[in-house]
Amino acid sequence: MNVRDLEARLLLGPGPSPVAQRVLEAMARPTLGHLDPQFLALMDDVNARLRDVFGTTNEMTFPVSGTGSAAMEASLANVIEPGEKVIVGVNGVFGTRLVEMARRMGGEVVAIESEWGRIIEAGQVESALRDHADAAVVAIVAAETSTGVRQPLDEIGRLVGESDALLVVDTVTAIGGTPVEVDRHGIDVAYAGTQKCLGVPPGLAPISFSPRAIEKVHARKTPVQSWYLDVSLLAGYLGSERRYHHTAPINMMYGLHEGLVALGEEGLEARYERHARVGARLQDELRNRDFRMFAQEGHRLPQLTAAMLPESLEEGPLRARLLDEHGIEVGGGLGPAKGKLWRIGLMGFGATDENVDRVLAGIDAVLG
Amino acid sequence: MNVRDLEARLLLGPGPSPVAQRVLEAMARPTLGHLDPQFLALMDDVNARLRDVFGTTNEMTFPVSGTGSAAMEASLANVIEPGEKVIVGVNGVFGTRLVEMARRMGGEVVAIESEWGRIIEAGQVESALRDHADAAVVAIVAAETSTGVRQPLDEIGRLVGESDALLVVDTVTAIGGTPVEVDRHGIDVAYAGTQKCLGVPPGLAPISFSPRAIEKVHARKTPVQSWYLDVSLLAGYLGSERRYHHTAPINMMYGLHEGLVALGEEGLEARYERHARVGARLQDELRNRDFRMFAQEGHRLPQLTAAMLPESLEEGPLRARLLDEHGIEVGGGLGPAKGKLWRIGLMGFGATDENVDRVLAGIDAVLG
Repeated sequence: MNVRDLEARLLLGPGPSPVAQRVLEAMARPTLGHLDPQFLALMDDVNARLRDVFGTTNEMTFPVSGTGSAAMEASLANVIEPGEKVIVGVNGVFGTRLVEMARRMGGEVVAIESEWGRIIEAGQVESALRDHADAAVVAIVAAETSTGVRQPLDEIGRLVGESDALLVVDTVTAIGGTPVEVDRHGIDVAYAGTQKCLGVPPGLAPISFSPRAIEKVHARKTPVQSWYLDVSLLAGYLGSERRYHHTAPINMMYGLHEGLVALGEEGLEARYERHARVGARLQDELRNRDFRMFAQEGHRLPQLTAAMLPESLEEGPLRARLLDEHGIEVGGGLGPAKGKLWRIGLMGFGATDENVDRVLAGIDAVLG
Repeated sequence: MNVRDLEARLLLGPGPSPVAQRVLEAMARPTLGHLDPQFLALMDDVNARLRDVFGTTNEMTFPVSGTGSAAMEASLANVIEPGEKVIVGVNGVFGTRLVEMARRMGGEVVAIESEWGRIIEAGQVESALRDHADAAVVAIVAAETSTGVRQPLDEIGRLVGESDALLVVDTVTAIGGTPVEVDRHGIDVAYAGTQKCLGVPPGLAPISFSPRAIEKVHARKTPVQSWYLDVSLLAGYLGSERRYHHTAPINMMYGLHEGLVALGEEGLEARYERHARVGARLQDELRNRDFRMFAQEGHRLPQLTAAMLPESLEEGPLRARLLDEHGIEVGGGLGPAKGKLWRIGLMGFGATDENVDRVLAGIDAVLG
């Protein structure tokens, strides 16, 4: 078995998304030491660029050395102490995962649920905060990759800002595709992934902690459960001290840097406009083909479309044909949506009109 | 700032080690989906090859999606329950880190200490096991990257095997450079890194759990603290079910596969012989130059030499000159060894006579 024999696919599923050649080539540059001054400068530049895309001035903004779920765990592990109340919005796989992780941290979870495919209403957060005024954390998913729902955060940000709780937001599928506004929404911890709208392979997970979140970490009575993800230890490496903590994934960092440079060249506004435009076009065309959108109207992610197939069609074999006969990967449903829908991603370098044409041609062929 | 402008270095520090062009090129292959049948087959092949280099038939052998310290944390998080006794051998940075992590897991640590640079004696483990017959875990470092000590495991493996405790061994710097014999030594959890003697960039961390370790995980009364590192959840993705857990670092896996293929072509015995030979030569030559070996005689790693500089020399400025004027990275000391020694790695693709010549020429130049 040889890596050179792997057949390339067009990645239009829920991630990873297609990676530009320039990013792949960046990853193949010679490995440097993790304390080499050149690498430290590169990492500082990555962090500065991440602040732009997160919409924040938070000093503690950096990539976690793991994938999106590691950053989710890092978020909760740092700000939850055992016995604290954690309000979690649950309307898909990633809200469910937040609950599971928060419990493992010793958090007492208050789940506020919406049907899969619908947003969490601000009123639900408001009443949860009223019933649990001692809540330490509110956690919510900005872009639910399992349902295609885009969660509004203006009102929720305001409500949590008026409480004593910290706001943790999952922006894994949002970042680089739809605006993430950490400072404007008063988000205390935002975490993301590289393999969606940033167009970089999986393996790093951007995260940003507000000064208020860092203050809470420093005031903890119990140690952070995870040594690997403890932000106060990571600060020693990221800050001027440059104290060894762990060996950062050097070549992954090259790829992330190049992806962020590409994003900077395009500009955030142009990038968001591109995702919005091609996503809307795909959704229109799918409706013309009798697909039904799974996410609530008015709250659909352009970069990740969850679409239910026309009645009576079994999705699994058709999805396998898309992959085998057309080289196109799309995703199936998860949890209660399993077997019912496709998740089609137009993310990062993959968000192009050409790819809309290609996936529609493939769909027309297999639905014949 | 551009990744293409980074100046290459000769990596002869404690890791990362030089990465062969074939591995870098493998990492630049097009990204596949983490559930693509081609990727799943590649991952299975990686795991089979890791079994060979770990010297085990353990089914649960795979790379953790993080760096070596993530795998250290995964080892302890899975097998320690709060309140359990954990005997830890401490004679360097990584033993100290094991203690810190085990405490965060709720473990009650019994530290058995040796001076930095010396091995943990089997007699120390024997008496700790006698005094703490209820110990759940014994953790020890096979290759101490901070001191260059190679820890004998025959006797310790036998002693722990006769107890009820599980044996956890840090093989981060050992794997691919000196023999790791998981099954022969009765090791229950061994973890490693990619960026040392495997010659692959950091970002994945091989790990292997014995059936006895997995049994203990299944019998736990408390959930594993970490969702990300919970081996019973990871088993759902690695096994026939192929259940989504997190998105594996695809391109890193390409690199690891290629590194393991290169290792397979060379053969384990030839690889160990190469490391032994060039390491011994470097150590001889350094002694000729009035360096003193930090590690105890008879227990020195060939792949990582900790050498104290001739008296009165300040190591920091000389090490900076090696990097700046000769493009050669070596490591400084950590903890009590800070400022006292250099750590010179001849690991993986870097373990060559040519590199011994180059580093000696650089040393001769800066020591004038």
